[in-house]
Amino acid sequence: MELVVVLDCSDLDRSAAFWCGVLGYRAAPSSSGTYRQLTPADGHGVELLLQRVAELKVTKNRVHLDLRVPDLAAETARVMALGARRVTDDPIEEYGWGWHVLTDPDGNEFCVLQPPGDGDGDG
Amino acid sequence: MELVVVLDCSDLDRSAAFWCGVLGYRAAPSSSGTYRQLTPADGHGVELLLQRVAELKVTKNRVHLDLRVPDLAAETARVMALGARRVTDDPIEEYGWGWHVLTDPDGNEFCVLQPPGDGDGDG
Repeated sequence: MELVVVLDCSDLDRSAAFWCGVLGYRAAPSSSGTYRQLTPADGHGVELLLQRVAELKVTKNRVHLDLRVPDLAAETARVMALGARRVTDDPIEEYGWGWHVLTDPDGNEFCVLQPPGDGDGDG
Repeated sequence: MELVVVLDCSDLDRSAAFWCGVLGYRAAPSSSGTYRQLTPADGHGVELLLQRVAELKVTKNRVHLDLRVPDLAAETARVMALGARRVTDDPIEEYGWGWHVLTDPDGNEFCVLQPPGDGDGDG
């Protein structure tokens, strides 16, 4: 069994550029106007499949991606430079974790999180 | 950066049992009443983090999981025996792929798909 994460979007090119930048992924060539396959540039990690849909987002997603990183501030700034919008003004802190909620170009929520341990790189 | 898939649910125990069965994952011990970490029993694959939320599902999820398998009928029957509900009466067929849409105990959609090639095991 191969597990793939499928993400709805309204513009395949825009979302491919955004998520490839965020995750360090590459978009596979595709003749389909409906799907685009994004895979890790280093070959390790789960595939992300973009799916173009007609309907817009209407409520909070019940499935989202978390990006665990060693430096919350630096990574938040990096993904915002790629086009992410930050939802939280200040980091949320819980159980020693700190994180921001952000959205992709279609408003899909994702989180950037720094695990407990102050940037020891295990995130 | 570590990528994690976060899935909202109403009952951590029920969703942990379901998704561990579906994916071959194990639930980590947790003292939190909010989160439960599911990781692949064989150590290879993306982490799934269950998050208990108060609100119920109101519309189609814009992020979902695809399970690519070599035998659509057998895998569909297996996940239904674990509690999945099938949304599609007949498999959807597109670009040589065949798949069913199913839902988990909270109504979160996921797909079981057989790639082109009739069960050659590369799914």
